[in-house]
Amino acid sequence: MINDCNHFTLKIDYNLKGVEQLKKATFYHAGCPVCVDAEKMMLDHLDTSKVDLEIVHFGEESARISEAENAGVESVPALVLDGQVYHINYGASMEEVKSG
Amino acid sequence: MINDCNHFTLKIDYNLKGVEQLKKATFYHAGCPVCVDAEKMMLDHLDTSKVDLEIVHFGEESARISEAENAGVESVPALVLDGQVYHINYGASMEEVKSG
Repeated sequence: MINDCNHFTLKIDYNLKGVEQLKKATFYHAGCPVCVDAEKMMLDHLDTSKVDLEIVHFGEESARISEAENAGVESVPALVLDGQVYHINYGASMEEVKSG
Repeated sequence: MINDCNHFTLKIDYNLKGVEQLKKATFYHAGCPVCVDAEKMMLDHLDTSKVDLEIVHFGEESARISEAENAGVESVPALVLDGQVYHINYGASMEEVKSG
């Protein structure tokens, strides 16, 4: 008797996304309504298989304001992705952020 | 003889992402350097399992300028995602787009 098992071939396509180099993304915001809306967009719709997203709220991490300014952030909310700054709508200037 | 095939159980985890409701996203731009950079970010990093992304270049589809304005687009580049407008950096005003 021929074993029918020999007729089966199992192909496995490995999902290689996990081993790709993730791009570092930092979303800076100050908790304002414009910021919160943009944060939701980033969290819900960025491809997390490509992007390692960190959220920084200046109200909780004011020590990172200078880091953001050095990266080129001029207003919040802003996304720094792979070194490139994307200002998304307009919540507040960095001067407003610094004055609290 | 027992057919060894009976000992095999094949489990299939269907990828259900494809049947989820995709959110409609439209990226409007005018071909400027700021636009092109933002377009690349959108194309490369949005989660296409959640978002059905359409790119509209006003230089090629000027008839859609009014559609964008009605959606709330004030400058390009802009992403309209699920009805919400996200202006990303600043390339040109819609007035500049209309004048040419």
